[in-house]
Amino acid sequence: MEKPPQLAFGWGARDASGVLAPFSFSRRATGDDDVTLKILYCGICHTDLHSIKNDWGNAMYPMVPGHEIVGTVIDVGRNVQKFKVGDKVGIGYMVGSCGSCESCSEEYENHCFKMITTSNGVYHDGTTTYGGFSDMIVVNEHFAVHIPDNLPLEKTAPLLCAGVTVYSPMKHFGLNEPGKHLGVVGLGGLGHVAVKFGKAYGMKVTVISTSRNKEQEAIQHLGADSFLVSSDPDQMKTAIGTMDGIIDTVSAFHPIAPLLLLLKARGRMILVGAPNKPLELPSFCLIQGGRMLAGGSVGGMKDTQEMIDFAGKHNITADVEVVGIDYVNTAIVRLEKGDVRYRFVVDVANTLTTA
Amino acid sequence: MEKPPQLAFGWGARDASGVLAPFSFSRRATGDDDVTLKILYCGICHTDLHSIKNDWGNAMYPMVPGHEIVGTVIDVGRNVQKFKVGDKVGIGYMVGSCGSCESCSEEYENHCFKMITTSNGVYHDGTTTYGGFSDMIVVNEHFAVHIPDNLPLEKTAPLLCAGVTVYSPMKHFGLNEPGKHLGVVGLGGLGHVAVKFGKAYGMKVTVISTSRNKEQEAIQHLGADSFLVSSDPDQMKTAIGTMDGIIDTVSAFHPIAPLLLLLKARGRMILVGAPNKPLELPSFCLIQGGRMLAGGSVGGMKDTQEMIDFAGKHNITADVEVVGIDYVNTAIVRLEKGDVRYRFVVDVANTLTTA
Repeated sequence: MEKPPQLAFGWGARDASGVLAPFSFSRRATGDDDVTLKILYCGICHTDLHSIKNDWGNAMYPMVPGHEIVGTVIDVGRNVQKFKVGDKVGIGYMVGSCGSCESCSEEYENHCFKMITTSNGVYHDGTTTYGGFSDMIVVNEHFAVHIPDNLPLEKTAPLLCAGVTVYSPMKHFGLNEPGKHLGVVGLGGLGHVAVKFGKAYGMKVTVISTSRNKEQEAIQHLGADSFLVSSDPDQMKTAIGTMDGIIDTVSAFHPIAPLLLLLKARGRMILVGAPNKPLELPSFCLIQGGRMLAGGSVGGMKDTQEMIDFAGKHNITADVEVVGIDYVNTAIVRLEKGDVRYRFVVDVANTLTTA
Repeated sequence: MEKPPQLAFGWGARDASGVLAPFSFSRRATGDDDVTLKILYCGICHTDLHSIKNDWGNAMYPMVPGHEIVGTVIDVGRNVQKFKVGDKVGIGYMVGSCGSCESCSEEYENHCFKMITTSNGVYHDGTTTYGGFSDMIVVNEHFAVHIPDNLPLEKTAPLLCAGVTVYSPMKHFGLNEPGKHLGVVGLGGLGHVAVKFGKAYGMKVTVISTSRNKEQEAIQHLGADSFLVSSDPDQMKTAIGTMDGIIDTVSAFHPIAPLLLLLKARGRMILVGAPNKPLELPSFCLIQGGRMLAGGSVGGMKDTQEMIDFAGKHNITADVEVVGIDYVNTAIVRLEKGDVRYRFVVDVANTLTTA
């Protein structure tokens, strides 16, 4: 006999106003390969802003956003091997993929053309996926990761998306070696974690920002080695050809040529923000010195587990402002203005009530 | 006693009109580490057009262009190990580098910030470098390569620049494996050699061009597996996500987003043309699937020797139109119009006379 769907409750958007409000819905029963979590915390990512306002034209309402989820396992399917009830578990940007393409075979489920997002996706069974601003979630065990015991859960939630988005390209493009020089452009949710990873790898880390505002913060609090003001031509000129790699986290249109010139020969810059206007690329910036520009978004499940284990080993977490679910709309407005250091995390378990 | 400079004769440009005319000059005596060549053939590269007309603002007149040089060794310095009189030798885009930087140490002399070009450069001794449209040349042995006996010299000259410019990134970005799918954009001096290398590696090669004009040539003559018309949206749509790599040889401004979308996840596109206007890069083209865009120009000396040995093994040469030195100005005009299949080569030894 097929098990009935499970009742769930969360906050969702009904339309492109993007305002979240209480919303009752259902999730599938715990399948043979699934784990069901009680959600404890969920981070607010920039992608959530775009999704709820239908900026990318693919919104399906009602929509429950949130894909930086940590929770406790409350039920497991009969085939589940990795998890047991009571385990602390994380879920990130995706909950499914085809499982058979080249990307899936090579453990880059994030590159699968049939990748299913945690929110606003269509699952294998045809149901809409709802994200982490809700009391519980059901997920195939392949798309969940163990959270090391020493990590505080509320500060760990953002690593599931922001963390792996910088960790994965750093790994795959060799920007994880002691002594190498890493530039981090933009000090937000992604950038501040990139600085921490870079320092944990023993790299020299330079934060690159349009103004001096965050200099003290970057160096004294986050441990960056130096700070470069991109609006200062003299500073930028002095730094030409000095960096092995750059993680560019800026999601607004910005000039990339001056950043590319900071790279050494064969240096690589990774775009992990997504400006909605085409960037201007003078080809000589790449041709001189055989430089490279790549893009990245999250990482495969193997990378995600590896990232969170690395974070556990080095005590790396995100700097967060924990808020209640009834503050979520205010938090979204503040996030749009960049008014958060560095990530909002919703305390779901303690503040979400059906009342 | 220091040896006196050697008299040389060639064709050079006096000003930005770019017209070449007979020109007498001198070259240094054969130094301890130098070989002196009698020049037999020299290819005409697009870079020569830009240089002689001062398109890049760095012209030093009088200028003798030409950097796709083959010749015979007529003198060697006392420290020379690699060559002896009578050897067939090639010289490409560069004749010097610092020898001590990271790039030089890793055999990427082409990325050395102090790399000295074969023409229009300033040599270590302060003299101006003059290129291959001349009767003889002196070069440090490190910057010369052996030419395999089986290769016809006039068809080999273009490999010294065009050949290594596609070979080197194909090697370093893993676009040299049997069964992989290579796209080649633009079927000119660089593109037609890229097709030949791709086929020699056992790859599937697709030529991408704005019109059908070169389809028959690409498939029947060069051995490409397929032909894609980039101005046909239906054809381009069908090909999305099918290529492991693309070599983009187009030196005019062109849309790169539709080309990037042809790449599989983690695919890489290499720019080896140099449009003088910034390209438009929608970041999602790179972010989706973690795609990569890099630039390349020529290759290190190790790659150059390896390339020409590979060419020898697989009987790969350029398709050329051999002309006399007195045709060089006409050839340059025709090259500007793309009216050559695929490279002009000047028969220096048989047509350059001081008369």
